[in-house]
Amino acid sequence: MANASQKIQNPKGTRDFYPVEMAARRHVESAWRSASIDCGFDEIDGPTFEHLELYTIKSGEGIVNELFSFTRAGGESTYALRPEFTPTLARMVAAKGAQLPMPIKWFCMPSMFRAERPQRGRLREFQQWNVDLIGVDGAAADVEVISVAVLALERLGLKPTDVQVRISHRVAMGSLLRRLGVSDEGVGPAFELLDRRDKLPAEEFAKRAAGLGLSPEATDRFDRVARTKLPVSSSVADLTAAVEAQDSDIEALASLRERLTSVGLAEWCSWDLGIVRGLAYYTGTVFEIHEATGAERAVAGGGRYDSLVELFGGPKMPACGFGMGDVVLSLVLADRGLLKAEELLPRPDAFLLSNGSEIAERTLPEVLGSLRRAGVHARQSYKQTRNIGKLLSDAAKVRARFAVILDDKLNDGLVTLKDLAGGTQSDIRLDDLCGLLRQAR
Amino acid sequence: MANASQKIQNPKGTRDFYPVEMAARRHVESAWRSASIDCGFDEIDGPTFEHLELYTIKSGEGIVNELFSFTRAGGESTYALRPEFTPTLARMVAAKGAQLPMPIKWFCMPSMFRAERPQRGRLREFQQWNVDLIGVDGAAADVEVISVAVLALERLGLKPTDVQVRISHRVAMGSLLRRLGVSDEGVGPAFELLDRRDKLPAEEFAKRAAGLGLSPEATDRFDRVARTKLPVSSSVADLTAAVEAQDSDIEALASLRERLTSVGLAEWCSWDLGIVRGLAYYTGTVFEIHEATGAERAVAGGGRYDSLVELFGGPKMPACGFGMGDVVLSLVLADRGLLKAEELLPRPDAFLLSNGSEIAERTLPEVLGSLRRAGVHARQSYKQTRNIGKLLSDAAKVRARFAVILDDKLNDGLVTLKDLAGGTQSDIRLDDLCGLLRQAR
Repeated sequence: MANASQKIQNPKGTRDFYPVEMAARRHVESAWRSASIDCGFDEIDGPTFEHLELYTIKSGEGIVNELFSFTRAGGESTYALRPEFTPTLARMVAAKGAQLPMPIKWFCMPSMFRAERPQRGRLREFQQWNVDLIGVDGAAADVEVISVAVLALERLGLKPTDVQVRISHRVAMGSLLRRLGVSDEGVGPAFELLDRRDKLPAEEFAKRAAGLGLSPEATDRFDRVARTKLPVSSSVADLTAAVEAQDSDIEALASLRERLTSVGLAEWCSWDLGIVRGLAYYTGTVFEIHEATGAERAVAGGGRYDSLVELFGGPKMPACGFGMGDVVLSLVLADRGLLKAEELLPRPDAFLLSNGSEIAERTLPEVLGSLRRAGVHARQSYKQTRNIGKLLSDAAKVRARFAVILDDKLNDGLVTLKDLAGGTQSDIRLDDLCGLLRQAR
Repeated sequence: MANASQKIQNPKGTRDFYPVEMAARRHVESAWRSASIDCGFDEIDGPTFEHLELYTIKSGEGIVNELFSFTRAGGESTYALRPEFTPTLARMVAAKGAQLPMPIKWFCMPSMFRAERPQRGRLREFQQWNVDLIGVDGAAADVEVISVAVLALERLGLKPTDVQVRISHRVAMGSLLRRLGVSDEGVGPAFELLDRRDKLPAEEFAKRAAGLGLSPEATDRFDRVARTKLPVSSSVADLTAAVEAQDSDIEALASLRERLTSVGLAEWCSWDLGIVRGLAYYTGTVFEIHEATGAERAVAGGGRYDSLVELFGGPKMPACGFGMGDVVLSLVLADRGLLKAEELLPRPDAFLLSNGSEIAERTLPEVLGSLRRAGVHARQSYKQTRNIGKLLSDAAKVRARFAVILDDKLNDGLVTLKDLAGGTQSDIRLDDLCGLLRQAR
């Protein structure tokens, strides 16, 4: 029995979070959470699994292969582990409809599941931060959503030289595509072609572009537009020149530019007209956050999807949001030395030691209990030894701020408080211990 | 398409957490988390699903009906959503073995899944707090684990008159059972009978007791022992008298009594010799936390299970822990008015209003951004109106601490800060705004 069980490991593509890994995960989640709350978003969550149909409505049956789905014995519904949060969000908004105060500003950061082959930056279970602003249209709302993402990245220690928000706009791109000769019906397929550009050989790309009604010259220009990358600080004239377009084509980008600049986000952002996002439901601004040199997969992706809630049976309402997974982000942070997990473990305020005398042994559990009840992170040794030197080294190992030594001085109501960073120590009244420890934090 | 999707709801027995429900859940989780950390436990987590065999090893095939299990197309492993954390914990400990510093003090609070019929206090997906202390034997360790649970309940506002930790001990009960004539081999089955006592008709109970070798008189005494409930403060003599036993039978209870009393937990705890816990792996102390009058299902359950890690292929090591779900606990808290979700939503530090003047409109997004970057929870209105009265009422609705009114006084570097609780207002320098808001928290 023991032998058989010895071989059981965590499922492929999932993670065991031991204390250091968990401290790193909580560090990331804490930045996500504080950025969301400071920007006025409220936290929500939904079930870990949903009815399978919730995912097939929007994406068709094709997505089933990427889902972990299951049916309960007895012929109940078929369920699937959530691969993304947006369908749950749309379902929750549609369910309450007009009862919800507008605008809706929600975030969540649950586990998501994809039945894909695990590889660098892509796991079968991961944490994903979702931020959505529903009920407000326009560049200001798009920029507010982007600013939440940037705020979290900034709090994690990243700089504009480390990560960039690459932005495009489907309306502007649609306008540019039409100018190249793509018909209204061809715009959707052209976005798909754009999204798969880097996966196709040049010949295949040219062939498909021709199928959309593009001349060889227009295909070249299409390709050039798709590769256009410019700082957001570029003037509108620079931008129109780069894409050989007119101001009216890129009105949407000009509005974004103005707002991004006024709120001080310009240096975090760049135009990348090759960004379209794979999913069909985006209707306006689209963006991805990438490591600045283009290493790794995207850190985050999102944009405006004004018809999504309606698709799930709710009223039509403007909406904008993004998702950011923890896997790629953690790689980018670790690569820059910004995820030193050992330092992220909670530090004990106090480590209590007894020298073994009767009064110290009797008093230690009481003091430990009363410190903890007062909200002080307090630990003790579980070793048999009462050698103060050995115990002090245990205290240092867990990075305790102070050691509290209990000995016969307790008869006079005193304990020794030793600052483990500074090395200084002094006798203090036991009655003052809790207050001093709380003050020292 | 919209019609079909309109009908999709969350799966039976799962929950949608809108902002108020989520605030209530985070309130509970925050008490769990802070109690764990203050008591020196480190947070961990494992995968949401595990290989199915991880659950069948310990509990046999019978448990499969209570699991949500699934197989990936292509004949990969069969997986199951985790119904409890203990097998994952044991697997993680066994995987690292001697590399882990001892003792292991871990907690987690993930989602768990049971494919049961949903009913009051029991859902198909719920949050469960797990606390485990591995590598330490004895009453002090048992009591430390119990004290973490009590600390969280206390922080949530509960008192010993609201909830009680009901404690028994398998070694003491085994000794009492043998004294009644149960053979060594009969002790295990007698625990099972004890656990199912309340679900069996009296006749069936008597019949099964006879099958264990108990005379009718011994069956009566067995039943009486099982119904013994006494305050932990009762003397050892009271306890031996109540169960017609000798001191040596209840040594284990006497040690627990001494420690519970010395750390000030006696009033939170009572003896309940009918508690055995269903699972076969408990080896010593067993406890459940119940609403004091016995309303609702158990809030938590746990105890000592010294052979568990070994069962999962690790070394033999003493272990003690508990699990506490959020569903029953939330019912108990709500019943006492201790879960006022509306009051638990994060409060904005500041709500920014513009009177519509050019400088106010231009400055507001900049101020909003810089406050948020400084860690201040700051909101604005998304309405078209610039009527200060209407906007102030929006600020009050979201329980903002201060309203910040932006108007032409910005030309002199001033804004109006209005304390929404006190009603007072004053003009302050824009440069001082952030500092004042942070100080006021």
